[in-house]
Amino acid sequence: MLKKIDGHGGAVPLRGLTMDKQGQARKAEQLRKLHHGGRILVLANVWDVASARVFEEMGFPAIATTSAGIAASLGYPDGQLISREEMLDVVGRIARAVHVPVTADLEAGYGPTIEDMTATVKAMAQAGAVGMNLEDVTGSDESTHVDLATQVEKIQTIRRAGEAIGVPLVLNARTDVYLMPIGPAETRFERTVERCRAYRKAGADCLFVPGVKDAATISKLVKAIDGPLNILATAGGPNVNELQAMGVARVSMGSGVMRSALGHARRVGRELLERGTFESMLDGAVPFAELMAIMSRQKN
Amino acid sequence: MLKKIDGHGGAVPLRGLTMDKQGQARKAEQLRKLHHGGRILVLANVWDVASARVFEEMGFPAIATTSAGIAASLGYPDGQLISREEMLDVVGRIARAVHVPVTADLEAGYGPTIEDMTATVKAMAQAGAVGMNLEDVTGSDESTHVDLATQVEKIQTIRRAGEAIGVPLVLNARTDVYLMPIGPAETRFERTVERCRAYRKAGADCLFVPGVKDAATISKLVKAIDGPLNILATAGGPNVNELQAMGVARVSMGSGVMRSALGHARRVGRELLERGTFESMLDGAVPFAELMAIMSRQKN
Repeated sequence: MLKKIDGHGGAVPLRGLTMDKQGQARKAEQLRKLHHGGRILVLANVWDVASARVFEEMGFPAIATTSAGIAASLGYPDGQLISREEMLDVVGRIARAVHVPVTADLEAGYGPTIEDMTATVKAMAQAGAVGMNLEDVTGSDESTHVDLATQVEKIQTIRRAGEAIGVPLVLNARTDVYLMPIGPAETRFERTVERCRAYRKAGADCLFVPGVKDAATISKLVKAIDGPLNILATAGGPNVNELQAMGVARVSMGSGVMRSALGHARRVGRELLERGTFESMLDGAVPFAELMAIMSRQKN
Repeated sequence: MLKKIDGHGGAVPLRGLTMDKQGQARKAEQLRKLHHGGRILVLANVWDVASARVFEEMGFPAIATTSAGIAASLGYPDGQLISREEMLDVVGRIARAVHVPVTADLEAGYGPTIEDMTATVKAMAQAGAVGMNLEDVTGSDESTHVDLATQVEKIQTIRRAGEAIGVPLVLNARTDVYLMPIGPAETRFERTVERCRAYRKAGADCLFVPGVKDAATISKLVKAIDGPLNILATAGGPNVNELQAMGVARVSMGSGVMRSALGHARRVGRELLERGTFESMLDGAVPFAELMAIMSRQKN
């Protein structure tokens, strides 16, 4: 505890709140529509409840999580070393804390089998999220690239599982052909388009192609893929307005905001160790009373 | 998952590692000594495993947690709304992830009774921490100030519980007379000194007086209190070197670093919304590969 704050004494802990299925279905539709509005959907991926509430309060229309950020926060490197339960515990805390739709980065679905996909969708819906990312590598190298037929089956299973539960979740299907990268450079574009088309046909709502930053390639992808395209913000890549002009539907930050916040913490630490002063800590910090107000705000 | 990183494929999840009691006792002594060295102990309080590993790597000789930061990260306002179990789950993740001693901010000990103190010490030791903060208000206003005799009994109980377990924990006893503030201004100094002396006699290793930033008062406190003094870094207060010159043994940041990191995230979000660019996100961010290396480093 740090100090007295008027008016937060009556705050109710955020856990334990539940969401009705109808409300969840409405939120899923709300998130889906954000991929088809006139404006690009900008997602500043969060890693905990505090960051989720801060971004909701700033006006972001939806909250996305970063799996790498949540994993690091809990003590794991990226790449499904964290358990499904631990990941969804954080996702659930976030979903229960914000009004806007929450879409969760669930890596490759936490498990190798088709049945794992069903279990993951159930746990995701239970946690209160209404959208998820599914990537097509299950590990940290090219050898773990899931073959196209299996990935299509996983996507179909996720789509069916969501319908069975009554939550028409927004599925963001990702291919890592560019990011990893996988296979010869000269066939990368064709293989990405092939995957995206198949994922879309299998029921994906949005296609996520991280690792592309060249404007010409992004423009070509928008035209070649029959469905909303998600691009990852990167150094040297197009900005939000440029991506929107190209027809990109969604831009996300991956673990970028979390790593930036951590980089700022490191600057604060360095100043403490080297100069013994607190300037970078005090500069622009969320005031204590404001953080308490943000965390105390009732959900409904 | 975000992308391929060479060399983290073999990483073992951090949970599940245990610490032997002897090692824990050694760490407690190591932390205690840091209060009696020639140099002031500087603690950049952390809120998750990633921030703990980053600060350990920078060379901080011990890791302290911020209860307000951890609570916000998990979805609660400050002030013991989080459960003992949730708080110590995070503390345990941190303690298992770093080599240096970990001291946990455990607010007013999570529960009103003397028995609660024993339960908290056991859970703290189980989590792998070797030091703890105990404050003398149990809620968010003056009315929750614990009477001196009860607080002394709590401190004695914590001291005995640590000895019984075999972990000679470093107890940082805090009084909130200045921070809240409690009672008339003209008797604040005397009441603070009375509390600190009684807490020290009851077995506290260090006395924490947050809310004081006036250099003359801090100097007077150092002389009046027979034991190491902990001061909270604040805007307008003395810096680390000045505090050391006054004889302060320990300076901590409270939730300052966490709120600063969150403030930085907000700047990133604002730039995204207002300008559609990523400059503040990319500036000084911990690179993805570096974060993976930090999280993959084996503990032993």
